Amino acid sequence: MEYLQRLVAQFARLPGIGTKTAQRLAYHVINMPPEDVKQFARDMFDARSKVRYCAVCGNLSEQELCEVCADPKRDASVICVVRDARDVHAIEKTHEYRGLYHVLGGTISPLEGTGPDDIAIHSLLKRLEGDVREVILATNPDVQGEATAAYIARLIAPLGLVVTRIAHGVPVGAELEYADEVTLAKAIEGRRQM
Amino acid sequence: MEYLQRLVAQFARLPGIGTKTAQRLAYHVINMPPEDVKQFARDMFDARSKVRYCAVCGNLSEQELCEVCADPKRDASVICVVRDARDVHAIEKTHEYRGLYHVLGGTISPLEGTGPDDIAIHSLLKRLEGDVREVILATNPDVQGEATAAYIARLIAPLGLVVTRIAHGVPVGAELEYADEVTLAKAIEGRRQM
Repeated sequence: MEYLQRLVAQFARLPGIGTKTAQRLAYHVINMPPEDVKQFARDMFDARSKVRYCAVCGNLSEQELCEVCADPKRDASVICVVRDARDVHAIEKTHEYRGLYHVLGGTISPLEGTGPDDIAIHSLLKRLEGDVREVILATNPDVQGEATAAYIARLIAPLGLVVTRIAHGVPVGAELEYADEVTLAKAIEGRRQM
Repeated sequence: MEYLQRLVAQFARLPGIGTKTAQRLAYHVINMPPEDVKQFARDMFDARSKVRYCAVCGNLSEQELCEVCADPKRDASVICVVRDARDVHAIEKTHEYRGLYHVLGGTISPLEGTGPDDIAIHSLLKRLEGDVREVILATNPDVQGEATAAYIARLIAPLGLVVTRIAHGVPVGAELEYADEVTLAKAIEGRRQM
């Protein structure tokens, strides 16, 4: 069963897919209509070959510019800095934000040997030479994300822009008693007058 | 992002893969080396086109006969009846069983409209005309599996073969107190002298 085992191995190499799941997926594919499998294989190949990075912000794109950068109705004076394209997707789904993005492609992590030069900070600075009013630092609320946000905030402080950090707090719909102490402390610290 | 969304949709159609996971997988593929993605797509296509069903037992196979049926060292006088090819794989991994298999391709389930004619029972009866000594019914220990086993047992009783059912009991390594009552009752009922 060489071909089947090869497909199992391919699925098992995907992140978060264990051997059992890989097997289940491979068996499913074996039982799919041949035309559907052909289409799946083609979609996989197409996605990889047609999707690239936006020349301006680093977001995933199928054109030279991503859909956000190419949209003249977006507010070009605000740039939201995120770790990767999935974060752009997550924020876009809120339909709240109307500015542009900048995708770092990683976070500063000395332990993993990722320094400021390994992520897209230089291209961010280049963009800030233009007409930018505010930079929102929206890296993850974890150690690397906070360190990266702090690094960038310090770096661009001399430019005199408004630099903000997304709010930490209790997730909407969550129960206070289940929130961890750090989140709860941040929620109290960041309280607003009603 | 048409191509990316298409790939997300493909992953999301796989069993047990939700939208979030599908997205994670698609983004991962986008970041894989193009050559690796090409190979993955090819492996998927190959597996589907090269893998078929064994002409004798219905197990998955890349030849006319599956690896078990084609092996002259297997004991052809014992046939183990299972629901699908994944069960064959699971039993083979124990390296305990040396007989042949018969894959039903489903179970009898009136609620889902699956009757005895929808699974490979006729071909099983054909095989029992040969030199078979024992039939092991190894369908799942759930309602459909039990019903299917009972149906087949009744059907082949007149042939005078030994018909057995795999043992129910407490899984090895499990704790008695966490076993459900039905399993525990079956374990006591199936007790053996030491």
